[in-house]
Amino acid sequence: MTRSAGWLSLSVLAALCLLSPAARAQNKPRARDLGIPFDGTAGPLNAITDVRGVEVGHSTLISGEGKRQVGFGPIRTGVTAILPRGQQSSSEQVFAGWFSLNGNGEMTGTTWVEESGLMEGPVMITNTHSVGTVRDAVIAWWVKHGQGNQPWSLPVVAETWDGYLNDINGFHVKPQHVFEALEGAGSGPVAEGNVGGGTGMICHEFKGGIGTASRKLDEKQGGYTVGVVVQCNYGLRHQLRIAGVPVGREISENLVWSAETGSIIVVVATDAPLLPQQLKRLARRASLGLARNGSISGNGSGDIFIAFSTANPGAGNSTGLVQLTMLPNDRMNPIFEATVQATEEAIINALVAADTMTGADNRTVGALPHERLRQVLRKYNRLREAAKN
Amino acid sequence: MTRSAGWLSLSVLAALCLLSPAARAQNKPRARDLGIPFDGTAGPLNAITDVRGVEVGHSTLISGEGKRQVGFGPIRTGVTAILPRGQQSSSEQVFAGWFSLNGNGEMTGTTWVEESGLMEGPVMITNTHSVGTVRDAVIAWWVKHGQGNQPWSLPVVAETWDGYLNDINGFHVKPQHVFEALEGAGSGPVAEGNVGGGTGMICHEFKGGIGTASRKLDEKQGGYTVGVVVQCNYGLRHQLRIAGVPVGREISENLVWSAETGSIIVVVATDAPLLPQQLKRLARRASLGLARNGSISGNGSGDIFIAFSTANPGAGNSTGLVQLTMLPNDRMNPIFEATVQATEEAIINALVAADTMTGADNRTVGALPHERLRQVLRKYNRLREAAKN
Amino acid sequence: MTRSAGWLSLSVLAALCLLSPAARAQNKPRARDLGIPFDGTAGPLNAITDVRGVEVGHSTLISGEGKRQVGFGPIRTGVTAILPRGQQSSSEQVFAGWFSLNGNGEMTGTTWVEESGLMEGPVMITNTHSVGTVRDAVIAWWVKHGQGNQPWSLPVVAETWDGYLNDINGFHVKPQHVFEALEGAGSGPVAEGNVGGGTGMICHEFKGGIGTASRKLDEKQGGYTVGVVVQCNYGLRHQLRIAGVPVGREISENLVWSAETGSIIVVVATDAPLLPQQLKRLARRASLGLARNGSISGNGSGDIFIAFSTANPGAGNSTGLVQLTMLPNDRMNPIFEATVQATEEAIINALVAADTMTGADNRTVGALPHERLRQVLRKYNRLREAAKN
Amino acid sequence: MTRSAGWLSLSVLAALCLLSPAARAQNKPRARDLGIPFDGTAGPLNAITDVRGVEVGHSTLISGEGKRQVGFGPIRTGVTAILPRGQQSSSEQVFAGWFSLNGNGEMTGTTWVEESGLMEGPVMITNTHSVGTVRDAVIAWWVKHGQGNQPWSLPVVAETWDGYLNDINGFHVKPQHVFEALEGAGSGPVAEGNVGGGTGMICHEFKGGIGTASRKLDEKQGGYTVGVVVQCNYGLRHQLRIAGVPVGREISENLVWSAETGSIIVVVATDAPLLPQQLKRLARRASLGLARNGSISGNGSGDIFIAFSTANPGAGNSTGLVQLTMLPNDRMNPIFEATVQATEEAIINALVAADTMTGADNRTVGALPHERLRQVLRKYNRLREAAKN
Repeated sequence: MTRSAGWLSLSVLAALCLLSPAARAQNKPRARDLGIPFDGTAGPLNAITDVRGVEVGHSTLISGEGKRQVGFGPIRTGVTAILPRGQQSSSEQVFAGWFSLNGNGEMTGTTWVEESGLMEGPVMITNTHSVGTVRDAVIAWWVKHGQGNQPWSLPVVAETWDGYLNDINGFHVKPQHVFEALEGAGSGPVAEGNVGGGTGMICHEFKGGIGTASRKLDEKQGGYTVGVVVQCNYGLRHQLRIAGVPVGREISENLVWSAETGSIIVVVATDAPLLPQQLKRLARRASLGLARNGSISGNGSGDIFIAFSTANPGAGNSTGLVQLTMLPNDRMNPIFEATVQATEEAIINALVAADTMTGADNRTVGALPHERLRQVLRKYNRLREAAKN
Repeated sequence: MTRSAGWLSLSVLAALCLLSPAARAQNKPRARDLGIPFDGTAGPLNAITDVRGVEVGHSTLISGEGKRQVGFGPIRTGVTAILPRGQQSSSEQVFAGWFSLNGNGEMTGTTWVEESGLMEGPVMITNTHSVGTVRDAVIAWWVKHGQGNQPWSLPVVAETWDGYLNDINGFHVKPQHVFEALEGAGSGPVAEGNVGGGTGMICHEFKGGIGTASRKLDEKQGGYTVGVVVQCNYGLRHQLRIAGVPVGREISENLVWSAETGSIIVVVATDAPLLPQQLKRLARRASLGLARNGSISGNGSGDIFIAFSTANPGAGNSTGLVQLTMLPNDRMNPIFEATVQATEEAIINALVAADTMTGADNRTVGALPHERLRQVLRKYNRLREAAKN
Repeated sequence: MTRSAGWLSLSVLAALCLLSPAARAQNKPRARDLGIPFDGTAGPLNAITDVRGVEVGHSTLISGEGKRQVGFGPIRTGVTAILPRGQQSSSEQVFAGWFSLNGNGEMTGTTWVEESGLMEGPVMITNTHSVGTVRDAVIAWWVKHGQGNQPWSLPVVAETWDGYLNDINGFHVKPQHVFEALEGAGSGPVAEGNVGGGTGMICHEFKGGIGTASRKLDEKQGGYTVGVVVQCNYGLRHQLRIAGVPVGREISENLVWSAETGSIIVVVATDAPLLPQQLKRLARRASLGLARNGSISGNGSGDIFIAFSTANPGAGNSTGLVQLTMLPNDRMNPIFEATVQATEEAIINALVAADTMTGADNRTVGALPHERLRQVLRKYNRLREAAKN
Repeated sequence: MTRSAGWLSLSVLAALCLLSPAARAQNKPRARDLGIPFDGTAGPLNAITDVRGVEVGHSTLISGEGKRQVGFGPIRTGVTAILPRGQQSSSEQVFAGWFSLNGNGEMTGTTWVEESGLMEGPVMITNTHSVGTVRDAVIAWWVKHGQGNQPWSLPVVAETWDGYLNDINGFHVKPQHVFEALEGAGSGPVAEGNVGGGTGMICHEFKGGIGTASRKLDEKQGGYTVGVVVQCNYGLRHQLRIAGVPVGREISENLVWSAETGSIIVVVATDAPLLPQQLKRLARRASLGLARNGSISGNGSGDIFIAFSTANPGAGNSTGLVQLTMLPNDRMNPIFEATVQATEEAIINALVAADTMTGADNRTVGALPHERLRQVLRKYNRLREAAKN
């Protein structure tokens, strides 16, 4: 089940020769590199950072092994920061909208997103029991760097639960890790798998974590980009479908759960000039990408999605009148399709990137075995034999 | 209880000499004319039609008397049409938002308002059992006059229940009444009381119906206008407060209900350039104006509110990119205050305008007695002795 | 493209020998009979009527041919009625919840469903421009048969748009058709395809319409049944996936639309004792079943879902205290999975059942070709060769 | 403006002789004691703790004076804990529902309240920038005392902003204060005014803070109790109405704000057996009580309300089937009325209880002057001369 040594089979090696830039940056293949077929045209990095201005940073905490001692580890967790307008303009608001497909989770700040249509500052993702620390640390960071629009702050912080591998009740995420994720954020390729908030996550009973993908519309559709980041931690094995293929039923060993205990956070970014109610529509579409991979959005799942637009730089101005540009609803279908596709692919990217991990109490969660996956896709005539991005 | 003869007391006569233009048009006093104090500055007509472009039309059905025979009457009902951009541009969409304070009622078309942020065509108000007829008749009217933005139509039609005075199960509203309300719509003063959809309505156990009011912001606040129309049919007597005075406890005779069975529809119009999520905020504020008059929004009440903005004439364009203007959230407080105030006053205007009515089964619902009301206000030191607009 | 003659290939004939009872009742194969693989265990009828007490009735209007003359036809439309507790107890309320995935459509009565948690009377489905007629006719039917819980009625009526094949602006659905659907409702197999409200519908650019399916949980999961009815009218061809197979890319001829103009209504019934907020969760799951078949929930789509529970027969009592039974949230996962699966299958059942139809202006929409579909499934190793229920 | 010495006028002294038990416990008068008229019958304590089982605890932080030095004070803040079923059963869930009238604020945990209909653990209220610390500390407390229903926790923590008087960016609330509030919680009278989360709050430009009130229905209405706690920090002076009297226009000196920057959190408890969707209805009614006191729910306000029921002790069971009792919707009106009334009174109680406070940068916010208030009420014939509870 582990992929530490054996996964570099010949066919995967062949695939690696054709790796996309982002994959080479991570020195490992991404889903497309393995020959998984996806619809639509990805952006240059196939990452949320294809949306100009968006920056992503991770702080990854991995230490200790063996038996869990609450407060001492082992630690398998972290923080991921997504800055809509980058560090240079972190308090410049963006239009945003959110949706909860199944609300067994937390995303702070959403009441004001819903009311105002605006989001100020980053989207942060961490583990369930560190949401508070991360939230207040974002405020502390703002206090240090100069305030935003109001004298108070309502940061957006989301989570999934990593208590299977991580000493989650030890509260190991500290303000310094939040600052690290924020200050380390950048454009360019986005690290995937066991990084940042995704470090200790589990998806369809394989190792999960952070994944990203993007779509670039053609010029007739406006030439817009849609980018997605997921922190995926949901699902039972038997439910997993990849490119429509019942992969979870074919690779049925090394299961983790008797009942689902996961979640997924999806962050959708676009440069299309969408208003808040339109961004809610995008957030809802993340459900459809998730469903393509087999999710039933189980009772224990915190499946919470947020979408923002980097267009309309003055959206958050507080004086005068704001001049805006809006894409008509009638032109949104390509953006809906891009959102569904990029969500679908970002999840598979997370599964492909995550490495086998051993954590608390010596529990091991195996990575999705790449070569085995290719065999299954081939069985169902869904492998792109000469895979390239 | 009736006001037919006795209400023209001397003090009211004095008030009438100072009547506002709208009151003179109706040849009866409005709430301000009676000396009821309201906060804020009304527009010239103190009506929703102070918002440029908005037109209102009524079709009023009153016929028959005596014992109710289902299908034969007596008939005390009607239809009111509010056209955001007037008849000349009835298919040009407006940004809109809605809110249900208590959903024991119907407002069709809201699912698309919520999704798109836009409303096409008029807001119609009628009785509960005629919503369907009115809805399809609006489509028929569009079919006749050329379609809107889509090949299908999702009209906005709301209702309150007039079955106490009206043979509601006789389904007396016909398509022709809908066309009449639409085609008779105009700017200028708005008839109040027992007209249009409000014909048979009851409010705080006085005769209710249609009411309107407006507020004009000063230039520093943007100079915007907020106008409100209500069809009010809610409330028990003891709950009624007017200008903070417990009027319902002071005028406690001639009660109608043992339990509340009413509703109120509030339509808010503004020329301020608000986006859909901002208009939802306005719609929610209608609750606060309603509450000032004592409502607890009872279980049987359909308290459903919709707000639209006549700004941004291209809001509904379906091609290219739409250029919009937005008032910042930070500048909305005067508009919130105006909405609360205009809702509060529109309800009292309805009560003041409605005349005593006898309907089905010889049931009579008395009008709010004007002179008595003035006595109560005086008792609580809340009467403006030299009342004028 | 038509299936009138050629579809009874040998392999389909073989499948027909193994037809399920419901399929035999309709004298045509259903999706499973063609060898399409679905997860989960269907109920005896694989229909919403597997939920005890639920009754379904259709009124189908097909007449005229040739050029469209508004008001004269051709007519390809109808009405479908779903009665949660059957005709014998049509005013006994059920707990219910609803969800709008994309709200370019209408479902009346939902404001009260959301507020009260209860639904009284049937769910009706028709064409977009007949919602009003159907709504008021349901009230008329109640007036005739004795009222429900309140002196007013707020019927639930949903729609999709059949204007491509049907003279929708002719308003051909009349109250008598509503009564016919209601009074013809029964338990047992449910007619699918070009019937009732689904008569003129189009799905993924094949002929669509009414479809149904069910799931029966095993006893350890509570033994509950989940049943679904869809009126499907959504989607572009290239998006269609069946059992994960990209069928729409393989069968790409005879397209209908340049842009999506469809919708889907999903009605979910269960005998599991769920509270209103739990039924909203079911309604949301319909999105996931829809997504498995490739929908992106386009801008023009009215994708509106409602779920109800036939358990707790006293849910709508208005006096005393009501004793209820609730399934804990922690036990809902099998019901979520059943809802996703039944929705997925009901849509494919609609596609499989619908026959090629020629309507207004001699437009023809072809049925999904059964044998061709089997070939495509075989190509992707997803055909159950010895198909049976 | 200050009340430190002069407020004990003769008439107030007279009132004090008739003080209710709760007022005597605090050694100061409450709103009723001053002769302010309220509708409805209060419970024995006129506090949320009249709902059996509910416990309230405060941790109050007051230290330092003079110029603000971020991180060093002055400190005027705290934490309030409301435990629905008391400390003895803090992880036993209650049915709950929430509503945001204006979402410029935070209430964590609401996504799961909305999804599940349940709330686990306490409702915590603090200042805006300490929400995270309080949230994670609640989890730490649970970790120490044994977990709840899930291996993860999603605490409900709300806030208002005290940065005018308090060094809010100094993050002075620590986990120990959270534990103190939780472990000090008890039944009995509830301290009001400058305590707990309300320590540094401002309401209608008077000193605000914590307030509470209750209503007891008569036996014919079920004999249920409704209790409310508010942390009130909203409103401009001119908007303030008390018992319908325009108090804010009469007492117009010593203003604080040029624009509203406040919020209000309302917590509603009842022992009536209400389901989650019914509790959302209660939460919405808090808006109406708030409106009676003049609020327009300004843009800067986080007006967020939550309601829970202590009935149905097994509501959160996770196995088997749960047997529940429900009050029919048709019987909810007295509970709606009680919620509106108790919210109205709890706010005035907070104003009456709060003492003048000097905080950061030597800013002083004056208390509502009791004797002056009585004069104003008398002017409008609204003073109960022989005030008693």
